Amino acid sequence: MKIRIGFGIDFHKLVEERDLWIGGVKVPHTKGALGHSDADVLLHAICDALLGAACLGDIGYHFPDTSEEFKGIDSKILLKRTVELVKAEGYNVVNIDSSLCLQEPKIKPFIPQMQQVIAQIVGISDKDVSVKATTTEKMGFVGREEGLVAYASVLLQA
Amino acid sequence: MKIRIGFGIDFHKLVEERDLWIGGVKVPHTKGALGHSDADVLLHAICDALLGAACLGDIGYHFPDTSEEFKGIDSKILLKRTVELVKAEGYNVVNIDSSLCLQEPKIKPFIPQMQQVIAQIVGISDKDVSVKATTTEKMGFVGREEGLVAYASVLLQA
Amino acid sequence: MKIRIGFGIDFHKLVEERDLWIGGVKVPHTKGALGHSDADVLLHAICDALLGAACLGDIGYHFPDTSEEFKGIDSKILLKRTVELVKAEGYNVVNIDSSLCLQEPKIKPFIPQMQQVIAQIVGISDKDVSVKATTTEKMGFVGREEGLVAYASVLLQA
Ligand SMILES: [Zn+2]
Ligand SMILES: [Zn+2]
Ligand SMILES: [Zn+2]
Repeated sequence: MKIRIGFGIDFHKLVEERDLWIGGVKVPHTKGALGHSDADVLLHAICDALLGAACLGDIGYHFPDTSEEFKGIDSKILLKRTVELVKAEGYNVVNIDSSLCLQEPKIKPFIPQMQQVIAQIVGISDKDVSVKATTTEKMGFVGREEGLVAYASVLLQA
Repeated sequence: MKIRIGFGIDFHKLVEERDLWIGGVKVPHTKGALGHSDADVLLHAICDALLGAACLGDIGYHFPDTSEEFKGIDSKILLKRTVELVKAEGYNVVNIDSSLCLQEPKIKPFIPQMQQVIAQIVGISDKDVSVKATTTEKMGFVGREEGLVAYASVLLQA
Repeated sequence: MKIRIGFGIDFHKLVEERDLWIGGVKVPHTKGALGHSDADVLLHAICDALLGAACLGDIGYHFPDTSEEFKGIDSKILLKRTVELVKAEGYNVVNIDSSLCLQEPKIKPFIPQMQQVIAQIVGISDKDVSVKATTTEKMGFVGREEGLVAYASVLLQA
């Protein structure tokens, strides 16, 4: 058994007149995440962790935010392509653990659905995908509701 | 052998008239961490990493800060309960690595004791628990001594 | 097979009249990283992840910034010594995944060279070292170009 570790982090601003996509789920809120794609901070962190574990570059390398192809794209498509890249190297995903840092809104009710969406795209059980959430206790740019951050850790197995 | 990864992050404000509990140890300082429990940022990050690795939700799910039961609670009790939840799923903890970001005070003298406390609760050798510390070079809310952050990574084995 | 996880994080200010060393490579920029050594944030995060995985303390413990010995030192030497410490405990490095958070400059062209430098010092293939990069979308002290942050995750095997 060959095991590999990956870690990803992603940031997006919160602004008005945008939808808030997190973990492939549209979360009702007065603000949304700003970005070239749908700006799904959690799926981007997971993509980066998967790519990093397989030493395949990063999300900016594969899906550049200067490309028309990815303008407004559903990040579930980016995750699907990332999983294909990782599997093409002979790896399977063992488990994914992730943490979302945002002050508002409460996302707890949406977490089971996020885990299901991610698990289905990655092709693993939703018992192997964890999404956690915390505020920053009103500190920093996350605490001021200017933006949100996501972290993801993954294990791959060959 | 089945291996799983977990990652946790936690934040607390530093305020006057509170004790500073870190890694189960009371650290002498002019400020302490604010929170519903004893606000032990390091133990909370470790709890979240353990829960995430086992796909058991997060610390806010199991120990809500709206519950009277957890008001002022010693976070060592929360870690003990977390370990019980993880073991009930058939997992053992392989090792824990953690990082604490705070500007003041110097916690280096307390690290061996923190590692021992954590190891004893988790039921592993203190050679399998690592606590590291860094400042943020006076940058951000940690640098301004408004708060502190802890990160934890864990491996579980079934 | 015995596997262990490690995680490291490091911070440095960006100031004028300093070189910008990242991942063992001198990156052309108007500012550089401030620190007692050459202030290579990425190599420091990797050192901390390796030390944490082996439960050997942290970079501040082994290479104190109060010591004349480490003033202005090339962090490649610190990584080399760290790897020796980890190997002396009987561990080999499985893979390293890292993330760099900085607003400017674009470091993408330098990433392959960073991966080669790190791989050579650690004694693994450059297919087992991943360096990724992201901005913070202009948020926080990284977004204001006051400093930079690096994260590293590692797996060791005994
Ligand atoms: Zn993104
Ligand atoms: Zn907490
Ligand atoms: Zn450093």
